[in-house]
Amino acid sequence: MSRYFVTGGAGFIGSNLVDRLLANGHFVTAYDNFSTGRRPFIELALAAPNFKLIEGDTLDLSALAGAIKGHDMVFHLAANADVRFGADHPRRDLEQNTIATHNVLEAMRTTGVKRIAFSSTGSVYGEPDVFPTPEGCSFPVQTSLYAASKLACEGMISAYSAAFGFRAVIFRFVSILGERYSHGHVFDFYRQLSADPTQIHVLGDGLQRKSYLYVQDCIDGILTAIDCAEQPVNLFNLGAEEYCKVNDSLDWICAKLGVDPKRHYAGGSRGWIGDSPFIFLDTARIRALGWRAKLSIRKGVERTVDYLRKNAWLFSEHRIVQRS
Amino acid sequence: MSRYFVTGGAGFIGSNLVDRLLANGHFVTAYDNFSTGRRPFIELALAAPNFKLIEGDTLDLSALAGAIKGHDMVFHLAANADVRFGADHPRRDLEQNTIATHNVLEAMRTTGVKRIAFSSTGSVYGEPDVFPTPEGCSFPVQTSLYAASKLACEGMISAYSAAFGFRAVIFRFVSILGERYSHGHVFDFYRQLSADPTQIHVLGDGLQRKSYLYVQDCIDGILTAIDCAEQPVNLFNLGAEEYCKVNDSLDWICAKLGVDPKRHYAGGSRGWIGDSPFIFLDTARIRALGWRAKLSIRKGVERTVDYLRKNAWLFSEHRIVQRS
Repeated sequence: MSRYFVTGGAGFIGSNLVDRLLANGHFVTAYDNFSTGRRPFIELALAAPNFKLIEGDTLDLSALAGAIKGHDMVFHLAANADVRFGADHPRRDLEQNTIATHNVLEAMRTTGVKRIAFSSTGSVYGEPDVFPTPEGCSFPVQTSLYAASKLACEGMISAYSAAFGFRAVIFRFVSILGERYSHGHVFDFYRQLSADPTQIHVLGDGLQRKSYLYVQDCIDGILTAIDCAEQPVNLFNLGAEEYCKVNDSLDWICAKLGVDPKRHYAGGSRGWIGDSPFIFLDTARIRALGWRAKLSIRKGVERTVDYLRKNAWLFSEHRIVQRS
Repeated sequence: MSRYFVTGGAGFIGSNLVDRLLANGHFVTAYDNFSTGRRPFIELALAAPNFKLIEGDTLDLSALAGAIKGHDMVFHLAANADVRFGADHPRRDLEQNTIATHNVLEAMRTTGVKRIAFSSTGSVYGEPDVFPTPEGCSFPVQTSLYAASKLACEGMISAYSAAFGFRAVIFRFVSILGERYSHGHVFDFYRQLSADPTQIHVLGDGLQRKSYLYVQDCIDGILTAIDCAEQPVNLFNLGAEEYCKVNDSLDWICAKLGVDPKRHYAGGSRGWIGDSPFIFLDTARIRALGWRAKLSIRKGVERTVDYLRKNAWLFSEHRIVQRS
């Protein structure tokens, strides 16, 4: 039995990870400020004797250090994950990703916790030349504030590993789908089609090529990697062995919902500033450890639609996200 | 005539750049908090009618924005350049490099200044596999907090270029030598030998291979690149086409001073945590623009010794560097 600390433990990926770790018999502390985390996501966990919830902010270093103390490993998943709106709030990614991650590292260093797993992003590859893109591709140029902030986190985590003997596993994720998914293109499309099944507005030209991964496959990958990681810094791409066009995904969603909306395209090859028109990661490194994605992207999209259908509350909430 | 803004304008490289820009007939504002900048470095500039000094901190966003307004371009050279002591002060690089650079970008964005040149470091390559190391080498893993913070700056600058139409020139420097040099191995060796010419203590095993560049060659490179930079983000290595061992450099310093000290080695292939045992950058990209280093490393080391000999005041100061 290990003692795991999960920042963002009430979030989409975090809460799924918490449930899995609890099911595997571990002690788990979730640390979340509920800015995007949701209480219903941890209902199951709250009933478990080995689970502890701490409501707190990663920007509060002393609270964080007090909470982290005594754990064997930190899964640092708390982040601003609003990739699209970086340019509208240019300091948010710096604060909630870069500075927050520095706090996590400092909290670990000062309390003697040395193992960390971190959720980075395939967006750190910017607009690469090689597909599928391997971890050791050419030194990339950043195209979004979100990815730049995650790259900054990767760099600090690696430097802490060199300076303080940390052992780190860094995951570069594609977009994740599945139960508790609550932002992203499937969410946007589903919401639009629920309001008006005859019309849909698509960012970009619909030809953007993206890879996605089902959340349970993602968690299988995380747990596979942390068991096998031997280096001070272990980097893994995590994504499906396929990609689809935004239009394909829209086709699947429409088929699932039995609708045939008129499609309106905003145009351009990018959905927003900093959007990468093609994301497809080479996952040979983690597949060499025995992992592979079990669910196809189409099945992942369909399960996400099923989940959204059953969880109308996600759309009825008009949440105002604020930080003190 | 352009209006240039130089952060760290009273520092080693900054003040040399200021002098050159003034000599070329431009209007120059230096912004410096004098934490490592020195007043004697800008004596010449202060006598020039086109020069303005603003004493201020890059962590003070409103002062910075007020100061930057109305300039054509920013040379952002202010930084914590104490590469060796990152692990002793784990937040310093984050604050003085990453957060400070974000402030520079925000100050530019909010005042409509869109051109930036930035002093990054060859240390962002970590411990590369390829020498000389080209800009587009394999995605590196960071080994020092200093380099991680500079990489974070590169990422933010690139993302601002994509999001807000900035045009950026990013330089990855080797260590710079020459007039106004005031920290680094030549400084340390010279200080030790001045105190006791019979003994010298060397970090590591003396076999570390490093490239250096003379400061006037560095400034030639900066000015060449900013005139030719056409892309939103332009990345250039800047270094000599040669490297030397730490022992070579020590030989040259001893020959210059006419001393033959007993050498004591701390041992190990790295001088400190995060030190890269081999730094040698591929400068083909900037050489294609017509630039090349005019001074050899040996001549650069010798000029630096000459400068230190004539500027004993650099050693007599017992400066306490503090930040509020």
